[in-house]
Amino acid sequence: MNLHQLLRDLREDNGSKIVLLVADGLGGLPMEPGGKTELETARTPNLDAMVREGVCGLSIPVLPGIAPGSGPGHLGLFGYDPLEFQIGRGILEALGINFAVGPRDVAIRGNFCTVNDKGLITDRRAGRPPTERCVEMCKKLQSIKVAGVELFVEPVREHRFVLVVRGDNLGDAVNDTDPQALNVAPLHAVGEDPPSQSTAKAINQFVAEAAKVLKDDGPTNMLTLRGFARYPKIATVQDIYGLKSACIAVYPMYKGLARLVGMDILDAGSTLADQCETLKNAWAKYDFFFLHYKYTDSTGEDGDFDAKVAKIEALDLEIPKIRGLKPDVMIVTGDHSTPSKMKSHSWHPVPTVLCATTARPDGAVEFGESFCLRGGLGQFEAKYLMTLAMAHAGRLAKYGA
Amino acid sequence: MNLHQLLRDLREDNGSKIVLLVADGLGGLPMEPGGKTELETARTPNLDAMVREGVCGLSIPVLPGIAPGSGPGHLGLFGYDPLEFQIGRGILEALGINFAVGPRDVAIRGNFCTVNDKGLITDRRAGRPPTERCVEMCKKLQSIKVAGVELFVEPVREHRFVLVVRGDNLGDAVNDTDPQALNVAPLHAVGEDPPSQSTAKAINQFVAEAAKVLKDDGPTNMLTLRGFARYPKIATVQDIYGLKSACIAVYPMYKGLARLVGMDILDAGSTLADQCETLKNAWAKYDFFFLHYKYTDSTGEDGDFDAKVAKIEALDLEIPKIRGLKPDVMIVTGDHSTPSKMKSHSWHPVPTVLCATTARPDGAVEFGESFCLRGGLGQFEAKYLMTLAMAHAGRLAKYGA
Repeated sequence: MNLHQLLRDLREDNGSKIVLLVADGLGGLPMEPGGKTELETARTPNLDAMVREGVCGLSIPVLPGIAPGSGPGHLGLFGYDPLEFQIGRGILEALGINFAVGPRDVAIRGNFCTVNDKGLITDRRAGRPPTERCVEMCKKLQSIKVAGVELFVEPVREHRFVLVVRGDNLGDAVNDTDPQALNVAPLHAVGEDPPSQSTAKAINQFVAEAAKVLKDDGPTNMLTLRGFARYPKIATVQDIYGLKSACIAVYPMYKGLARLVGMDILDAGSTLADQCETLKNAWAKYDFFFLHYKYTDSTGEDGDFDAKVAKIEALDLEIPKIRGLKPDVMIVTGDHSTPSKMKSHSWHPVPTVLCATTARPDGAVEFGESFCLRGGLGQFEAKYLMTLAMAHAGRLAKYGA
Repeated sequence: MNLHQLLRDLREDNGSKIVLLVADGLGGLPMEPGGKTELETARTPNLDAMVREGVCGLSIPVLPGIAPGSGPGHLGLFGYDPLEFQIGRGILEALGINFAVGPRDVAIRGNFCTVNDKGLITDRRAGRPPTERCVEMCKKLQSIKVAGVELFVEPVREHRFVLVVRGDNLGDAVNDTDPQALNVAPLHAVGEDPPSQSTAKAINQFVAEAAKVLKDDGPTNMLTLRGFARYPKIATVQDIYGLKSACIAVYPMYKGLARLVGMDILDAGSTLADQCETLKNAWAKYDFFFLHYKYTDSTGEDGDFDAKVAKIEALDLEIPKIRGLKPDVMIVTGDHSTPSKMKSHSWHPVPTVLCATTARPDGAVEFGESFCLRGGLGQFEAKYLMTLAMAHAGRLAKYGA
């Protein structure tokens, strides 16, 4: 049986509240043999108290050895098998700029490039123009109309933008028009099946118009398109778990991922303190809250061990505000590890703590990789975390008689 | 999504090197309550150093409770789900005598038997003849020709031999001709589908000829056939992981299994010291090396606890030679457990250690079942070991954006 169908069958609404706090890229590594990880180094009295009262473990984001991007990392935490539910690159790019993609959309990553008078590419990134130039060029492209579809062109930064084609029966099996080489022309878009042929036809018309519109705008006088992606067919959190759910995130990408699974997006402000205030104000209105904290990832990506430690300590200081609301289940975890030592996302299982009155004690006393390795949740695939949350919230009936 | 396809999509070539050292049947049991296992008893300073520097865990060869043969045990370690990729008995028997089976082959296990003047079996094993007799009888059978196929008859030992039928469109859905009973004639071969009917037709012709050829050779005056198996369709290690791979094994079975997944088979000599010398000489030419050490299994099968301990200690002494080559990832594990107490392969999870600069410390200090139980790799299915190796070797891009 399908996990989501099982949850639909077993779920009950008892009015309990669940908080999922995702510290992006939380897991780490010691910088030197014999050292501690970022989380083990940080002074985290409030997270440690959660570990003593609750149950901890290590979350495997996808499968052993597979390091996820933010998309699959979060889908796993929301209870969607990240290998079954895939979000295309174009959709992720659109989510990242807070574009509200919908079920009739195909989203595409665009690059401004430079072509010579023969139409051959001489710079695939148009000399990395300033973002203001990107904004200006996107405005020009917004004037283009193609019959039968709606088009949206939105700047990202430098040479990058997002193109969204909205219409009925559009497919995303379309080749990249970026030839990934110089001295060749951008490729023609070709669709693999009738819906994708509709998309390709609209795209080729758009590109032909764009070539005219941008003609005199060297070095941003042409564009290429990559990562055609349809809006994924995905059941909502409400549908699967029966949870009225809210996202309290600062960065667009995570709001977008939450919107994709049907969460309401609340105005989160710009700091974790703001997010906690939002949480408090919305407390009565929702069953489930997803809070996202970015800085454990960005400091890890920077390779700045000490900064990551400081960001973990800053997170710890806000924990009492959340616990003060007395959630029935509170979870702190990450969507993946981002060890400062590696300066990148990694596959290492992610420290996770779950507090609830039904948590079975496991003897762990500090929130860190070593204690989580011996924790009561063991090493588990991230996609099961929501099932555990629902169980500890008293929201799942027993299976079978 | 299929694991192999995922790996093909994510793999990168960074020139790093991986060594997989398989100590066959490595895992064990204490002989007495309160005792230690073979591995815990052995003095293994070099393996212990690997555990302190790396990460350890327990590999589940197939599924909890399933003890594998050498075929599934090794396929799992090479990253092939041993329940999905099955190697027929005839193929395994052929691999075991170093017969280079290929994609046009059906391999079959043969037994010489004794029939009376009515053609009824009186001894299913022909009185277990000496192997020289088996060799002599196989030579006789090699003279038999059947139109449309090539035939190969090779002795194994005592009453056992291998028959390989080579041709186009041959199937392996053919019944055993061994009736597994006395006072009945060997069964006629029948194919379940047209390709298998072609095989059965050739086989029945061969058996009819064999009956004539062996007529006066009682007690080895007839034969039965079992375990018809086609060469499996299996992607190579190169295709899945992009690894140029070499096998350094002494015993034919393991060379055969490695050849099946596309590894180059290097001349390994006859001792682990020889194997290390081969490894050193081939170091520059390959990305991945599979070393096989047989004696931890054979001593376990003999029920000789002390001998298994000694063989583990002998293995430990060679470890510095391998580590001296500075592999980016080095793994020591087994294809299954072979507890001396049981004198057989078992299902018990297998101690495993992985050394790499990205290994997350787990506090383990000795290579043994107890420390591996608390190790950072947890208890994992063997089929994920290669994914972990690829990740730790820096050979996998992140999944999704």
